[in-house]
Amino acid sequence: MNITHIEHIGIAVSNMEEAIAYYENILGMKCYAIEEVKDQKVKTAFFMVGQTKIELLESTDPEGPIGKFIEKKGAGIHHMAFAVKGIEEALEETAAKGVTLIDKAPRKGAEGLDIAFLHPKSTYGVLTELCENKSK
Amino acid sequence: MNITHIEHIGIAVSNMEEAIAYYENILGMKCYAIEEVKDQKVKTAFFMVGQTKIELLESTDPEGPIGKFIEKKGAGIHHMAFAVKGIEEALEETAAKGVTLIDKAPRKGAEGLDIAFLHPKSTYGVLTELCENKSK
Repeated sequence: MNITHIEHIGIAVSNMEEAIAYYENILGMKCYAIEEVKDQKVKTAFFMVGQTKIELLESTDPEGPIGKFIEKKGAGIHHMAFAVKGIEEALEETAAKGVTLIDKAPRKGAEGLDIAFLHPKSTYGVLTELCENKSK
Repeated sequence: MNITHIEHIGIAVSNMEEAIAYYENILGMKCYAIEEVKDQKVKTAFFMVGQTKIELLESTDPEGPIGKFIEKKGAGIHHMAFAVKGIEEALEETAAKGVTLIDKAPRKGAEGLDIAFLHPKSTYGVLTELCENKSK
């Protein structure tokens, strides 16, 4: 698999407004985009830090994946996303090596990226996302 | 605060050998260092991905912080570490803005960095580390 860098770190938050204020006023970052991803039942806010984004995730529905995550584990880091070249080949190779895929084929995520998740039971507990920006 | 990039992502693992094999054989990364940090009761393994390190953490003692984390939450992402310029000033500023510090002054961490942790109750659930490499 050809991973170039960590594309983003996804962080589940209960209150987006308060969390944005923390990242801006304490850590000195700048929120550059807020986007709703309806099929994932989340609102997202993005910050750039070096070559990696911080993606805050607030649930828009208690039954959505982030709502359930917070209910079970509390707010905190939710997933880690790697930028890859050739996401389809990466998924094929990963599945062939015995990793369980949540997404067998890439789908569209925030910011128009092609994304797919690997199941944490195959990745030593880390919900892992692969991303490719095909518009680049 | 002057954050330049994400220095590393710390990941708690139950079995270092198996986790290293996953990062090398599935994700295609290369473990470049293994180091024991005795006062934290952990063995660490490092991988570079873009400008960020992945730091695997295996407990050497069930009563150490990683042993307790895994008992409570299971294996997975443990903390996020930002590279800062001027860690002492960053800690002062952060405390003055009401954030609870785990380390009031920097101490030595893996790879000889000056490090300090912010308490997750002040950081929206994310155990957050500040790091500075003063040898650079």
